[in-house]
Amino acid sequence: MAETQRINGVLAPVVTPFKPDLSPDPERLLAHCRWLLSQQCDGLAVFGTNSEANSLSVDERITLMDALVAGGISPRVMMPGTGCCALSDTVRLTAHAVKLGCAGVLMLPPFFYKGVSDEGLFRNFAEVIERVGHAGLRIYLYHIPPVSQVGITLNLIEKLVKAYPGVVAGVKDSSGDWDNTKAMLDAKFDQFDVFAGNELVLLENMRNGGVGCITATGNVNPAAIHRLYEQWQSEEAEQMQAEVNDLRNALLQFPMIPTLKAMVAHFSGDPSWRILRPPLEQLSAEQLNGLISVLEARNFTMPAMPNLAA
Amino acid sequence: MAETQRINGVLAPVVTPFKPDLSPDPERLLAHCRWLLSQQCDGLAVFGTNSEANSLSVDERITLMDALVAGGISPRVMMPGTGCCALSDTVRLTAHAVKLGCAGVLMLPPFFYKGVSDEGLFRNFAEVIERVGHAGLRIYLYHIPPVSQVGITLNLIEKLVKAYPGVVAGVKDSSGDWDNTKAMLDAKFDQFDVFAGNELVLLENMRNGGVGCITATGNVNPAAIHRLYEQWQSEEAEQMQAEVNDLRNALLQFPMIPTLKAMVAHFSGDPSWRILRPPLEQLSAEQLNGLISVLEARNFTMPAMPNLAA
Repeated sequence: MAETQRINGVLAPVVTPFKPDLSPDPERLLAHCRWLLSQQCDGLAVFGTNSEANSLSVDERITLMDALVAGGISPRVMMPGTGCCALSDTVRLTAHAVKLGCAGVLMLPPFFYKGVSDEGLFRNFAEVIERVGHAGLRIYLYHIPPVSQVGITLNLIEKLVKAYPGVVAGVKDSSGDWDNTKAMLDAKFDQFDVFAGNELVLLENMRNGGVGCITATGNVNPAAIHRLYEQWQSEEAEQMQAEVNDLRNALLQFPMIPTLKAMVAHFSGDPSWRILRPPLEQLSAEQLNGLISVLEARNFTMPAMPNLAA
Repeated sequence: MAETQRINGVLAPVVTPFKPDLSPDPERLLAHCRWLLSQQCDGLAVFGTNSEANSLSVDERITLMDALVAGGISPRVMMPGTGCCALSDTVRLTAHAVKLGCAGVLMLPPFFYKGVSDEGLFRNFAEVIERVGHAGLRIYLYHIPPVSQVGITLNLIEKLVKAYPGVVAGVKDSSGDWDNTKAMLDAKFDQFDVFAGNELVLLENMRNGGVGCITATGNVNPAAIHRLYEQWQSEEAEQMQAEVNDLRNALLQFPMIPTLKAMVAHFSGDPSWRILRPPLEQLSAEQLNGLISVLEARNFTMPAMPNLAA
């Protein structure tokens, strides 16, 4: 198989819509994915943390992936999250994503047991790679210790890249620690791409050899973040960075996942977008009012959002 | 349906054997369960933390549960762990356990998202209960913040017991904090049984109205712990407590899950018991030697362990 263009740029961990009975809603997901791509979002990191991925079963994720591809989304812009606690689940999801032709997979380490060794984590990833056994597999390691509590060390990356060059293809660093992202960049691992965990450090990431960012706010502000990505070497880059940071920082006063969903609901006019699976909760009325004020103060809008309830 | 006798006493979170290809081994699991019951273990908390339950898919757990019941293990002594990150997975596993007639289920809260509210967790458990919709459901809440990082507060228990009396039937407190266990006991929630998270505080738990313990070392030392449970009001109880504590405390210098498996392997003579799924790892040669010394110094043995490799 010829090596195809690697995925890069601004990826959104696509929020997952639910029906009132809390089942996933493939039609609304497809509509949101199409909207994201129409807004120059470069890729779809479906089943990320902000997608409530770990609140979905493996079967639910497979059904949604299939629906997106059947709906005309190119698998070459997809980087689904496939890392589960159970090796068997991770293998099944990853194999399905590769079979569909996805550009890559974003892989959490197994996250139930804490304090596990790099050797144990290496063995986990190695088993997944060997069992999937497909030359098209591209794994992006997902480092998000604030949530998973199990991290991806430089030492682990080094061992994996050495054992599986080209297959272990990159990392998303959601540590929130630029020094850690910088260390991943400075290591200059072979055929290994570093995505920042959000757009606040997108310019710094590009200046140091990174390939983009995978960011929650990519769900609601993709065009502006993509513009910064595309024009990072321009004179206006600092100003663009400041502008996307202003929105991101203003949103951070609210819990992120319900905030993203409230924004999609607000700008599409489709209130069902606010539904979350427990244990997550919708914004309170007070939080929602605060959010609307933040958006109005910035004349912020999401253009031409589809409304499937209309 | 008439209320049946509630499960209590000493329950083992049964270690899960794997074949060399890392698939679960139902025959060895059945053999170990039979041995545990022959040693006066009162119940089988299959799919607990020490069972590597979260390293198993839902389908793998269902297959193992079915194999145990088909093999003659009474579901009335079974309390399978059924709490997953995804609501849909928890519902499916729990419904299956109830359909089999299990005495109860041990339910982790959804543990991927951290810092979630009691209201969000309440909604999670409520959805599970409503969706399973079976009068025979008995949920034992699983409080193990050192691993899950998401806990079960007294406030949450109070709300759940009020909304679902008799269905929310108890708790396993693996906080490692006796004050917390004592507070759960002192609250005297209606129809609510408190299991200690290990045998170190079994006597204290019984003296304060608890119903037993669910303990890792129940896998290897069930007879002595059961004797303490049965004779907690006797004059020898303090001495029995000291004896089971001595073994437990000596074992705690090694990582628990590989230690339990190494002990089963050692006393059965079946080395395949040492296999773990990643990210967990077997004891090193040095740790294994240390463990054997600990056991020999105490003349410790596990009588009449079955050897399926022989």
